[in-house]
Formats: sequence, structure tokens, C-alpha cells
Amino acid sequence: MSQETRHATPHTSGPLLLIGGAEDKIGSKTILRRFVHLAGDHDASIVVIATASSFHDMVGERYTELFRELGARQATLLPLHTRQDAQNTATLQQLETASGIFMTGGDQLKLTAVLGGTAVARQMHQRHQAGCVVAGTSAGASAAADHMVAYGSSGIPPRKAMMQFAPGFGLVRGVVIDQHFGARGRAGRLMTAIAHNPTLLGVGLDEDTAAEIDSEGWLTVLGQGAVMMVDGLDISHTDIHLVADRAPLTIFDLRLHVLSHGYSYNIHTRTPRISDDVPLPQPATDPVRNENS
Amino acid sequence: MSQETRHATPHTSGPLLLIGGAEDKIGSKTILRRFVHLAGDHDASIVVIATASSFHDMVGERYTELFRELGARQATLLPLHTRQDAQNTATLQQLETASGIFMTGGDQLKLTAVLGGTAVARQMHQRHQAGCVVAGTSAGASAAADHMVAYGSSGIPPRKAMMQFAPGFGLVRGVVIDQHFGARGRAGRLMTAIAHNPTLLGVGLDEDTAAEIDSEGWLTVLGQGAVMMVDGLDISHTDIHLVADRAPLTIFDLRLHVLSHGYSYNIHTRTPRISDDVPLPQPATDPVRNENS
Repeated sequence: MSQETRHATPHTSGPLLLIGGAEDKIGSKTILRRFVHLAGDHDASIVVIATASSFHDMVGERYTELFRELGARQATLLPLHTRQDAQNTATLQQLETASGIFMTGGDQLKLTAVLGGTAVARQMHQRHQAGCVVAGTSAGASAAADHMVAYGSSGIPPRKAMMQFAPGFGLVRGVVIDQHFGARGRAGRLMTAIAHNPTLLGVGLDEDTAAEIDSEGWLTVLGQGAVMMVDGLDISHTDIHLVADRAPLTIFDLRLHVLSHGYSYNIHTRTPRISDDVPLPQPATDPVRNENS
Repeated sequence: MSQETRHATPHTSGPLLLIGGAEDKIGSKTILRRFVHLAGDHDASIVVIATASSFHDMVGERYTELFRELGARQATLLPLHTRQDAQNTATLQQLETASGIFMTGGDQLKLTAVLGGTAVARQMHQRHQAGCVVAGTSAGASAAADHMVAYGSSGIPPRKAMMQFAPGFGLVRGVVIDQHFGARGRAGRLMTAIAHNPTLLGVGLDEDTAAEIDSEGWLTVLGQGAVMMVDGLDISHTDIHLVADRAPLTIFDLRLHVLSHGYSYNIHTRTPRISDDVPLPQPATDPVRNENS
């Protein structure tokens, strides 16, 4: 950054890597490899937050091993089981020097209920603002935005009250992220989310697929599946405020984009782009069969 | 403001006047009078948004009459029934020149479903950022924050899924506002809201009571009842992610403040204050009995 522009842009927030769950861990590991790259490759100092998981240590240690295998200098599981843990000085020091933060899957409501408003949540926000990459898979992806699908049911048609919102960590604003999107048939609940307030932008992430969002709002797709963007700004009518719980919703003029590996979309201007100019990892050449967890 | 500090604070957002519903309309009209004052008294040019109401014209015109009686130069009901209406050029022009914006009660989910993401919602945000006062009563108060109680049930003990979030207009961030608070026994649902993510600050507004929030985050109470502040930052444990829908929640260390007329609280620093230095309207001396609608 030049001397002239430094004052105009006092900080550039780091990338977000939001993963739809079940990312490849034994084949080419495209997405996890990308995370380690964004965290600094051989200089990477990664912390893993496994609070969402019911198998905290097992899941957390699996990721720390994977990140070390992928070349990270350091990868540490933060002991974050309770709200007290999230005020611990040693933990905060580890977070402060991290070049990459990774949130595992599990239950996103546990993530926000245990970490929301704690020193760890504030510091994760500050680290991201200061340029550190933050990644989350499954529950970890959902909790990254300001509005989160806390829980809900599957199905294609949107129905009232089929999903419940909760406030997320707000690392990215104005969007709501859903994951395991195709595998669990979650189109309905994402459309229902948008109908509540069509200013929201829905991001539906397939498994083994990630959305990488840069500081200018460019979201680029990475991985085997698709990312569905659900844009409500043009909605000309919805009856969500008129119908009973569980009743199907009417929504006119929802705009959808389905993006696969390499395509981009700007979440501020809401425009898709063919991303031949965005550097992406090479396609997988690893002969090992992808056996997602 | 001095020449030196002007560049550091390029704009000062206007006040927010959030009312718990059933504000006095026939007695001293303390709260509505305060709104007209903040909008410029005899220079006030007020627009009323009655989209939340099922009785759009009747409710809207009642407010425009009241505001004219209270001395406003101009008070206009904006015709906002549909999402198409919210793109109308004439309506946007009226909003652009308004010195005060008032949202009536009704259904807050209708407000966000009809206006969210429209040109009217964007312009309301811009006007507020530019210094215009925005007021809302009941549903209109709920929709002002970034996180909104869309609907829910009454009761004192917090229970899982007794309330549903939706994204609001985001005129104030990091808070969730509930109204008719004492009259409808809504303490439970506000505590449930906070348990989802304890970083949220809950604001429970009684009827005929308002919270006036300035650009520095000072909230000052006005009116007959109380404002309850529900601060979750110190929550040391909650089990919201563990229990079944409708089950009672466990929450440790919730911090509550109950504030009456004249007391203040800073929503950024989360500190209460005895507000003898804040200018408030004189106490009502009008002999007409208060008969809230």
C-alpha cells in the first residue's frame, strides 16, 4: 500500500473462507489448502475454534493435524468449552498472534451462545479487521455473518417459521449463510430467511465448497459443488407477514444465481462475474478418491 | 463542533425515538411532543410510515393530525402499502426533504417484508445518518434495530423458541428492542433473545414510554413507564443450545437495569447514568386524564 493511500484506508479486513461442510480432508484438500495459504503457508500460525462441536477435542485436533500436514508452522486448538474459557488470558494471547482462525462445524447456536459477547469473539473480530483470514465450515460458516440460521427444517418450498434466526458474529454484514445446502435440501429455509427482510442476501453453500470473500465484497467459489446466491432486493411481493406458521410462502421476483468453482459475485453491488482474473488453486490432480466425512 | 474535529466526525446521525406503544395522544402528549421538537418544532416536516398497520390510512392520518396539532409545519402520510410503492419517486422526494420520520405500530414483520431492501428503507437510513430524527412506536420501534423480535409469546420465564428473530432496519446496531413490555409480560422473550448471542443488548420498552438514543449511544428514558436494559455480556452460562423447543432456559449472570423517566444508559459502554444534565421536557401539567389507546 502506498504512503498516500494508507490514511484513506486505515485497515483492510482479512478474507473470509466460508465452507459448506464436509470439505475434502483426504484427497487434494483444495479448500483447507487454500485456508493455509491465506494464513501464510509456512509462516501460518493457525488457531482452531471447535466450540460448535460435541466432539471438541477429536474434531479440533483433526483440523490442527491437517493444517500442520498442509504446511502451517503452527496449529493450535483453543480450549473454548465455556464462556469463562473465552475470557482466558493465555487463549486470548494465542488468538492475538494467529495469522488464521478456523471455526469447525457442529451447532452454530452453541457457537454464539458460548462465545457471543466474550473477549474471544471481540478479538476474532479485531483480528479479522486487521487482515487475518477467518474460516468456518458448516456451523462455523453460518455463525460468521450478522444474521444466522440458528436452526430449521429442510425442504425446497419456503414455509413460514421453518427456520429461526439468531444474531451471528457479524464478520460479514447483510448476508445470511446456509450450508450443506444441496445435500440437505435447504433452499426453502434460505428463501424463507430472505422473505423476512428482502435486504438480506442469502448464500447457500454446498458441501466441499467454499465462498472466499475479500475486503471489497468479492465472493469467489472454490470446490466441488455450487454456491447459490439468493438476492431479495427485487422481491415485488411476499406474504410472510400474512400466513400461519408452517404455511407455504408466496414470494415474487426472487433473483437466484448458482455459481460454481471460479465464479465470483460482489455482495455489495450484487453483480456476478466470470472470474478468469482471480487466482485460484490448480484443479485437483491427486488420484486419491474424495471420501468426504 | 470545532474546525479540528469536524473531519474526524464527517456526519452525526440523528436521534432515534423508540416508543413502547400506546403513547399518550390526548393528554400532555409528552412523547409525541418531543418527537415534533426533535423534528424542528414549527419548521418540522414530518412523514409518517404506517405500513405496519392493518388500518393504514386511519392510523396514519391520526398521527399526521396529531403532529400538526403539536405545531409541525407539515405532516404527511406516505402511501406505502406494497414494495412497488416503496420505489415511487414522489414518495422518495417527500422522504428526502423530511426533518422527521415516524413509523406507526402494527406488525413489524410486515414493515420489514414490505420495506426491507427498498429505496424507501435505504433513504430512511441515509436521512437518519444525515441527522434526521426517526421515531417508531410498537412495531415501528422493534423494526428500527438490526435484530428484531419478529413475533413470539408472552411470559416471564425465558423459553427456547418462544420468540423469533428477523433482521430489522439497522438504524441502531447491536440491540434488540421489545415493546408493550410490562403490559404484555415480555421479559421472557427478551431474555431468550439475548441468550442466543449474549453480545446483544436487550431494550424492553413499556407503553407510553420512549427511549431516545443520540449519536453517541446515550439512551434517555421519557414517559410514564420504565425501560428495561438486558445486558448479556456477563452471562457465564446458558443452555439454549442444549434444550428442546419450549423448554425453559438456564441463564447465569444476566445484568438488568430498570430505568424510569430522565435516566440514561450508554448502549456502547453499557453504563447507566443519572441524567440531571440531559435536557428533558417539563413534567406534564395538563389536567386531562391520560387515556391511552
